[in-house]
Amino acid sequence: MSSESQAPSSASEPCRAPPPLPEQVKDEDSKSVSKKAAKKEAAKQEKLRKKQQEAALAAAAASMSVEEEDPLSGSYGDAPLSELESMSEEEITKWTEVGSLTSALSGNSVRISGRAQTIRAVGKNMAFVVVREKGSTVQCVVTVQPEVVSRQMVRYVAGLSRESIVDIEGLVTVPNVPIKGTTQQVEIQVKKLYCVSKAMPTLPINIEDAARSEIEIEKALQAGEQLVRVNQDTRLNNRVLDLRTPANQGIFRIQHQVGKIFRQFLESEGFVEIHTPKTLGGTSEGGAAVFRFDYKGQPGCLAQSPQLHKQMAICGDFGRVFEIGPVFRAEDSYTHRHLCEFTGLDVEMVIKQHYSEVMDIVDRLFVTIFDSLNSNCEKDLEAVGRQYPFEPLKYLRNTLRLTFEEGVQMLKEAGVEIDPLGDLNTESERKLGQLVLEKYGTEFYILHRYPLAVRPFYTMPCRDNPVYSDSFDVFIRGEEIISGAQRVHVPELLEERARACGIDVATISTYVDSFRYGAPRHGGFGVGLERVVMLFCGLNNIRKTSLFPRDPLRLAP
Amino acid sequence: MSSESQAPSSASEPCRAPPPLPEQVKDEDSKSVSKKAAKKEAAKQEKLRKKQQEAALAAAAASMSVEEEDPLSGSYGDAPLSELESMSEEEITKWTEVGSLTSALSGNSVRISGRAQTIRAVGKNMAFVVVREKGSTVQCVVTVQPEVVSRQMVRYVAGLSRESIVDIEGLVTVPNVPIKGTTQQVEIQVKKLYCVSKAMPTLPINIEDAARSEIEIEKALQAGEQLVRVNQDTRLNNRVLDLRTPANQGIFRIQHQVGKIFRQFLESEGFVEIHTPKTLGGTSEGGAAVFRFDYKGQPGCLAQSPQLHKQMAICGDFGRVFEIGPVFRAEDSYTHRHLCEFTGLDVEMVIKQHYSEVMDIVDRLFVTIFDSLNSNCEKDLEAVGRQYPFEPLKYLRNTLRLTFEEGVQMLKEAGVEIDPLGDLNTESERKLGQLVLEKYGTEFYILHRYPLAVRPFYTMPCRDNPVYSDSFDVFIRGEEIISGAQRVHVPELLEERARACGIDVATISTYVDSFRYGAPRHGGFGVGLERVVMLFCGLNNIRKTSLFPRDPLRLAP
Repeated sequence: MSSESQAPSSASEPCRAPPPLPEQVKDEDSKSVSKKAAKKEAAKQEKLRKKQQEAALAAAAASMSVEEEDPLSGSYGDAPLSELESMSEEEITKWTEVGSLTSALSGNSVRISGRAQTIRAVGKNMAFVVVREKGSTVQCVVTVQPEVVSRQMVRYVAGLSRESIVDIEGLVTVPNVPIKGTTQQVEIQVKKLYCVSKAMPTLPINIEDAARSEIEIEKALQAGEQLVRVNQDTRLNNRVLDLRTPANQGIFRIQHQVGKIFRQFLESEGFVEIHTPKTLGGTSEGGAAVFRFDYKGQPGCLAQSPQLHKQMAICGDFGRVFEIGPVFRAEDSYTHRHLCEFTGLDVEMVIKQHYSEVMDIVDRLFVTIFDSLNSNCEKDLEAVGRQYPFEPLKYLRNTLRLTFEEGVQMLKEAGVEIDPLGDLNTESERKLGQLVLEKYGTEFYILHRYPLAVRPFYTMPCRDNPVYSDSFDVFIRGEEIISGAQRVHVPELLEERARACGIDVATISTYVDSFRYGAPRHGGFGVGLERVVMLFCGLNNIRKTSLFPRDPLRLAP
Repeated sequence: MSSESQAPSSASEPCRAPPPLPEQVKDEDSKSVSKKAAKKEAAKQEKLRKKQQEAALAAAAASMSVEEEDPLSGSYGDAPLSELESMSEEEITKWTEVGSLTSALSGNSVRISGRAQTIRAVGKNMAFVVVREKGSTVQCVVTVQPEVVSRQMVRYVAGLSRESIVDIEGLVTVPNVPIKGTTQQVEIQVKKLYCVSKAMPTLPINIEDAARSEIEIEKALQAGEQLVRVNQDTRLNNRVLDLRTPANQGIFRIQHQVGKIFRQFLESEGFVEIHTPKTLGGTSEGGAAVFRFDYKGQPGCLAQSPQLHKQMAICGDFGRVFEIGPVFRAEDSYTHRHLCEFTGLDVEMVIKQHYSEVMDIVDRLFVTIFDSLNSNCEKDLEAVGRQYPFEPLKYLRNTLRLTFEEGVQMLKEAGVEIDPLGDLNTESERKLGQLVLEKYGTEFYILHRYPLAVRPFYTMPCRDNPVYSDSFDVFIRGEEIISGAQRVHVPELLEERARACGIDVATISTYVDSFRYGAPRHGGFGVGLERVVMLFCGLNNIRKTSLFPRDPLRLAP
């Protein structure tokens, strides 16, 4: 606090939610500047505001003019940008989520807010609006009724554009026949309807097209009908619309759940969450896979993983740490499973005796995550499955562990010859996944004791046979998803291993020096959040599980 | 899964914990390459390994030679890099955390692992080792005893360097007199002691120096003794050592708790955790405060906040979202409260009626966080307070809300004249904090309805008086910590406001377009994790609450 005098202004302090745009980025001194300029600007603003208000009033008057003679005109129309007052207790209780509308509420008056997914007029006296909120949908009926709903109101509703946001007040009823095409089996008899925000009449993609499964498209084709298929790039270019499909609503709620259980489990095991820097000094890094930039005159680069810093946290006595954060890879990988930026789930921990302690955590952590998804995300998994059908993941209560040697032997017996001291390629990984599923009935297993030669230089060699290493990979549905190991904690051995791998020891001095002040035995693992969700749901592309994916070609939106 | 054929290799897949170094970054094709090269490399490795093993055995033999004649030599010495087997059930139960060692365990045999914080020999028959684990300390006594502890063992222990990692087996006893200088009030009568990792004999900073409070230094000075004061830069340059102090152990456990409660509270309120991209297209961004880089041939920059994308998630129908992630500011701010990279806690939510709904969340969220810190982090807060004394934060059960006008009035009455439509500068913020504390007895409060002219262009103007805006700042101990507002969700008004602020609308088209497909009323806020911890604990520098801080001059370690 005493150094406050060093901070004459706080205009661009980190905590202030910043504007996404350059012109809004204030200088360090702008607060005092803006203070002086503020009065002038405020006067200018007031003028502009008044002008704008008048324009808005005029526009509102114009749009209302056709309904001027309607005594019920207060029950519908364009909503103001905000209300003047916060909600009363009564108002709060009236608001109901679309997903919570059940027959138990029959006869109740409710308020809902959501999107007008479809609008259909039936003659001049009736209109149907399907309202969608967070992927749940309900049918709302607007029928002319004396002193409640006017013809003008029906006309107003019929004229709404799809995906507009509407606030509705009405009565919950249960129709005699089941309602097709909505998630909720009740109807709302509309009394009031206000439009909060109008969508453009023509959208780049229609939600129902974006929500369609391949099976539907194929079926329709067989019946001679050509339905719209929205391709991946169109989806991603219009991600704000694409995210509204039930499958996408489900995918990102599942992603949330994975992160939540990951944390909860590790916290319960005594792990501390850390946040390591993503900007690193550039001199000791290299290779094509690194994003480089100028850091205030110093060479900088983006962290490819929190590897170094999570190990430093262990040397800093935190015992067990984890991190959830972005990881950057400037790789030219145009595959279904690579991104240039993804969310890394990283773990590092003190090992008392043996690297199996790390595998124990992996085992229990992921069984807990899978169990939780199956029991808490049923609706979301269903929503994903409707568009992208998949079989539930098969996994055991105690995760199967095979040594690399055993894996090689299984492949050999199945007629697949591979180098017993090389790495597995994607094809043999997939084959081994099949063999394991047949023999052990699981699509989730750990392969450990990898050959030392195919692991990074900082991997601990096996004490009983240094051709192998204290390391492991974990597979889901035949694809590698987690990589982990015990690390070399002795600086002399680390340097020796680096040299053996052809690394100039001088370039890694910061890393090695971290272990010179006493370092416990330790190890850890890393996994990509997007990949966990992709493989659990059997999706075919990692771009489906990244909110706004980044690949070598895509840097927007 | 069907596009697997597009992924011929998975050598550098995102999930694999990557090496921190360039030479380890494999190409897309390296897996097949390494497969071929692996055998050759493996043979080479085996040779090297054998050579190394022989050297290690020779070294071990040399270090043991002096004790050759000791029949108890199996009870001490250098531990192997890892054990051959995982722990048995019996071994697992024996391991005890230093922090859990209490008189209740008296008479029990335990195993502990930690650092030799201090080593003191008393003659040739006795040595004391204070062992520290995660900030907790215990005194261990090594006394010559027939068939248990030899003189050679005492000599080995006395020769250990400070901060080395030791595994100890021994008996818990309760001494007759209280033990000064350790956190635990028991002793360990050592039977076995193995050194896992040796620290360099001379360390860049001593932990006891780094853990010393200013008060101690001053007191000693008055008594004529000059104690070592470790300055901030020396600490940060040797962060791995600095982090081991009790205060730092506490700070980062408190930080963990803030993040944990932030999430738990928001989850319980229906918020979904999102991960937005930190790499953005560079053309629409500008200003000096942005880190720019080449993104595979496109101009890219690092996100200054998740502002745009969290609003897009709202337009994508997630209703309520939050994010915990790094935020990058290339500012030349050399103050006690600015960093170039920090952890942003961001929230965005649909507003039903009024921006007070956002303030309601802020209110309950932070009261919950503060309550939780006070009740769950007592030990950690104490540890911080011992080195950096502070008064507990004063806050109310229902957070005080003042309008900007009311704040200006309070300042005016206290003789501080400020522009009623300008912004507050740091000095008046601090003064207002004092006045609020005196009048309302709280150091945590919300100031809302800021003048529109001092807020970003996307801030919603107040409906009843557009000179003001639907926005707020939140203060802790007189410093602004949170900034929030209702956003403009109508594209036409957004463009108008941008123009009024002198922004070229063409440069913000992506942002504006997100609201063209129907956008609910929404708002949110942002806060820096490091700043919450700094101000809650009354610390004087934000570098103290960042694990590995980044400022304009510091990009390492």
